[in-house]
Amino acid sequence: MSSPTSSGSTATLLISCPDQRGLVAKIANFIYSNGGNIVHADQHTDFTAELFLTRIEWQLAGFNLPRDLIAPAFNAIAQPLHANWQLHFSDDLPRIAIWVSRQDHCLYDLLWRQRAGELAMEIPLIMSNHPHLQPIAEQFGIDYHHIPITPDTKAEQEAQQLALLKQYRIDLVVLAKYMQVLSANFVEQFPQVINIHHSFLPAFAGANPYQRAFERGVKIIGATAHYVTQDLDEGPIIEQDVVRVSHRDQVADLIRKGKDLERMVLARAVRYHLQNRVLVYGNRTVVFA
Amino acid sequence: MSSPTSSGSTATLLISCPDQRGLVAKIANFIYSNGGNIVHADQHTDFTAELFLTRIEWQLAGFNLPRDLIAPAFNAIAQPLHANWQLHFSDDLPRIAIWVSRQDHCLYDLLWRQRAGELAMEIPLIMSNHPHLQPIAEQFGIDYHHIPITPDTKAEQEAQQLALLKQYRIDLVVLAKYMQVLSANFVEQFPQVINIHHSFLPAFAGANPYQRAFERGVKIIGATAHYVTQDLDEGPIIEQDVVRVSHRDQVADLIRKGKDLERMVLARAVRYHLQNRVLVYGNRTVVFA
Amino acid sequence: MSSPTSSGSTATLLISCPDQRGLVAKIANFIYSNGGNIVHADQHTDFTAELFLTRIEWQLAGFNLPRDLIAPAFNAIAQPLHANWQLHFSDDLPRIAIWVSRQDHCLYDLLWRQRAGELAMEIPLIMSNHPHLQPIAEQFGIDYHHIPITPDTKAEQEAQQLALLKQYRIDLVVLAKYMQVLSANFVEQFPQVINIHHSFLPAFAGANPYQRAFERGVKIIGATAHYVTQDLDEGPIIEQDVVRVSHRDQVADLIRKGKDLERMVLARAVRYHLQNRVLVYGNRTVVFA
Amino acid sequence: MSSPTSSGSTATLLISCPDQRGLVAKIANFIYSNGGNIVHADQHTDFTAELFLTRIEWQLAGFNLPRDLIAPAFNAIAQPLHANWQLHFSDDLPRIAIWVSRQDHCLYDLLWRQRAGELAMEIPLIMSNHPHLQPIAEQFGIDYHHIPITPDTKAEQEAQQLALLKQYRIDLVVLAKYMQVLSANFVEQFPQVINIHHSFLPAFAGANPYQRAFERGVKIIGATAHYVTQDLDEGPIIEQDVVRVSHRDQVADLIRKGKDLERMVLARAVRYHLQNRVLVYGNRTVVFA
Repeated sequence: MSSPTSSGSTATLLISCPDQRGLVAKIANFIYSNGGNIVHADQHTDFTAELFLTRIEWQLAGFNLPRDLIAPAFNAIAQPLHANWQLHFSDDLPRIAIWVSRQDHCLYDLLWRQRAGELAMEIPLIMSNHPHLQPIAEQFGIDYHHIPITPDTKAEQEAQQLALLKQYRIDLVVLAKYMQVLSANFVEQFPQVINIHHSFLPAFAGANPYQRAFERGVKIIGATAHYVTQDLDEGPIIEQDVVRVSHRDQVADLIRKGKDLERMVLARAVRYHLQNRVLVYGNRTVVFA
Repeated sequence: MSSPTSSGSTATLLISCPDQRGLVAKIANFIYSNGGNIVHADQHTDFTAELFLTRIEWQLAGFNLPRDLIAPAFNAIAQPLHANWQLHFSDDLPRIAIWVSRQDHCLYDLLWRQRAGELAMEIPLIMSNHPHLQPIAEQFGIDYHHIPITPDTKAEQEAQQLALLKQYRIDLVVLAKYMQVLSANFVEQFPQVINIHHSFLPAFAGANPYQRAFERGVKIIGATAHYVTQDLDEGPIIEQDVVRVSHRDQVADLIRKGKDLERMVLARAVRYHLQNRVLVYGNRTVVFA
Repeated sequence: MSSPTSSGSTATLLISCPDQRGLVAKIANFIYSNGGNIVHADQHTDFTAELFLTRIEWQLAGFNLPRDLIAPAFNAIAQPLHANWQLHFSDDLPRIAIWVSRQDHCLYDLLWRQRAGELAMEIPLIMSNHPHLQPIAEQFGIDYHHIPITPDTKAEQEAQQLALLKQYRIDLVVLAKYMQVLSANFVEQFPQVINIHHSFLPAFAGANPYQRAFERGVKIIGATAHYVTQDLDEGPIIEQDVVRVSHRDQVADLIRKGKDLERMVLARAVRYHLQNRVLVYGNRTVVFA
Repeated sequence: MSSPTSSGSTATLLISCPDQRGLVAKIANFIYSNGGNIVHADQHTDFTAELFLTRIEWQLAGFNLPRDLIAPAFNAIAQPLHANWQLHFSDDLPRIAIWVSRQDHCLYDLLWRQRAGELAMEIPLIMSNHPHLQPIAEQFGIDYHHIPITPDTKAEQEAQQLALLKQYRIDLVVLAKYMQVLSANFVEQFPQVINIHHSFLPAFAGANPYQRAFERGVKIIGATAHYVTQDLDEGPIIEQDVVRVSHRDQVADLIRKGKDLERMVLARAVRYHLQNRVLVYGNRTVVFA
């Protein structure tokens, strides 16, 4: 979904709060009374959870509040509603670190999309537990840090990884076929991580999903992009997609077909995240696609 | 999308008007100030057409305005906005006439879905230019009118059809594989008509799409549900879907696969319409699915 | 895939045997030397299992061997190859029993497709553990047997079910939303059973898949048709398909969308089976679709 | 579909001939009598065209005929059958020229897939009517020829293009978003050309398909890979695929979504071609996928 170029920079509020009457009116009034022009508004009510979730995007041009006063002003409205909320500006480009192991297809795909203008982000850092993909980083002019991981060194290496995330002021880590499990401690300290899992979760969670899909004789395989939590492969799902396979497809074919799925699904999930279209609650997501 | 059963009857406003600041706020305030609880709100701005389109659904329980005063009250808001709008109540079941020729798959499907509670509508009338499907009408206890059409009799038969639509107080005609073209005059007098076309429009518009798809050697075929206009197969598209075919599929296979597409696509389009999720402008639709 | 009507009745051989040189030649020669015209031939080699699987269909018109001599004649070729094989004639209509519980969508769909000529089978028997769907059986003129199942009566009721299958000379049982588990003993005595499972197996095997899919927050749901084995939900998969869902879909929406999947997937699997396109080996299928 | 690595190099025959009894047997006997082990065999009969089409692939290890004698030997069988046929060896890598204009997504994708081992081909030449993508060619170490085209220079430039194809011994030209129409004369002289068209042909043939798809308000867009003939956008279709769009998608979104389609569909078509899975007859293809 594109805003027209004429709309210029926008602000986006992502809000979740206990459901109650008047929420749409209160939030819309806040923007209207300050001269804002809403370009996109989505809302969802989870009646079971009694939760209201909304995403509102409006043009900054003509908005009466200066940027740094929007958050405090909205806070006065949000507090009595017991709302969780985030405020984003479309011209603040998030800083992304891409983590890889040896496979390059998701990395290449993200780099190409960023260059092509499909993903509004900066990529100052590529990190890997292997040295193999350094030439790609160089080709795109991005710093590459090789941090090998062994069971013995994992704790100290994660400390180094966290330090690099801090040093590069990273907002989001994208695990683009990074074949290591992050520790609970890491996830607690840096919770903004998107992973691509090469199966249609919850089917074939864990290792070797293509081999296991082949053995089970499924007729469709999938890929899943999700936020990483302390429970492996159990985090909130952002996006999934599938492709048909047949008895003619060997494990190598599942892997090949899966690569296309993985790069498409991961790219869509990252795009949704960058456009602030994803709200997480419990172990679920609302994606205002 | 289900509303929870606890929400009871709802009112839905479908609104389109020239884009301007404050529309979301004004509409939301109208509902909130009268004590309404919004359960769904969707909006879309077509920046090229400078048009704002929205669908708002709220619970009638606890709403302060009696039903017959909602329209006049909202009109006072809509007029200065130069808005086109419709108001619907979820417990007003639209009355549908299904028109068929000789094929029964879409008819059966709609009847089954209505009985299964998937389509909130009444079906008091089935009309056909052939007598073949009368037994199905009887089996479901629905009046069946056989009105044969020839080039010579078309005008007078359409007059009779219009009379029947009036007599049965029909809100919407669903052409469920009715293989006759409606005249411009008919469409002008009764514009609420949904048709299922057995191709992926605009490909293979007109007659014999499966034969022509076969001859062209396409690898995917489709079906299209659209509102009927005076330009054959050119009306606003509500829903489309496709299925993969191969060299192994003969024309008979395209027809068989197409039947499944047709009943799915038509059922979805009718459901969207019945739930007041479709807004038409120009030759396009917004479907708040 | 249709054979042309001009081809008349056909014979089909389904063969699996240890891979070795010359298999295609030997089988094709058998048919050619007897004057047969092959209309379809498919083969697959599983190199891991070192197994060759093939399906050959030829016109009976002009074939020199009378029907009852084809099997003995082919057996002379098959034995030295250590082949498992089946021979089917396209004008021998298999006799199907459809088993249901309370939901009617798959039943209706199969009955409609049989009448429409999509499924070449006879349906002399509908069986259910509930009385609810008897009117549908009557409407289509099919015997309906109501056999309630309780934990205490299961063994004797299954004995009665087996007796009915024998009495009606049933070739295949289709579990069209039959919500009871068949005992290992039953499956051993009557192994030709196709089931439709309302999830994308192996995800959400077991009970309440839609509820569990909703709780997990998946973005795609599926359905799976498989042969029944003694291991619940673990039998060889014949066909699967999926549909996209979003945060807007409640459990009731998953159920509704799933119904469409279930009837499509089950119908395709039954059709593949009836056309002798499915070969089972290990826990896998080859579907020559 | 992978052959196992243990199978080594293979030979593939693609054959089309008038349908008659004994074709499978004759071809299989040719391979078996020379000691060949068939690893894949597919056949199709177009009963309307009375044409038999087949693809047979067998292991060269253990085959009694030397490579250069296979063609003459098979010719003795093919001539009396009035067969058209091609013989390919899996270790003869076809030489591909990729033609581009300014867009890089299909180019990058093909280059990545070739490197990743998904496409068994050599790419000695990239040609373009623009200079923009030369850096990509350099990065992958491939010759880049910039041949600008104007209406006045088209004839002589095509002569130069044909000379380059000859000089580089090119087997296949892949138009990877090359935005020029090839002349009838060019196609006659070099008929092996695959193009990717950014619409679901035959819908929106010609220019600006995304703009026109947007204006028509379709709910699904597509891409089509086809062999180029003298009739623009009318050549035999190899592969198509589609993606769902909604009212939220502007033309820029259709273009973005279309790019993913284009690279997937083109890559699949090129792969089918390289694996000798495509047979053309009339304006149709058989793809033994």
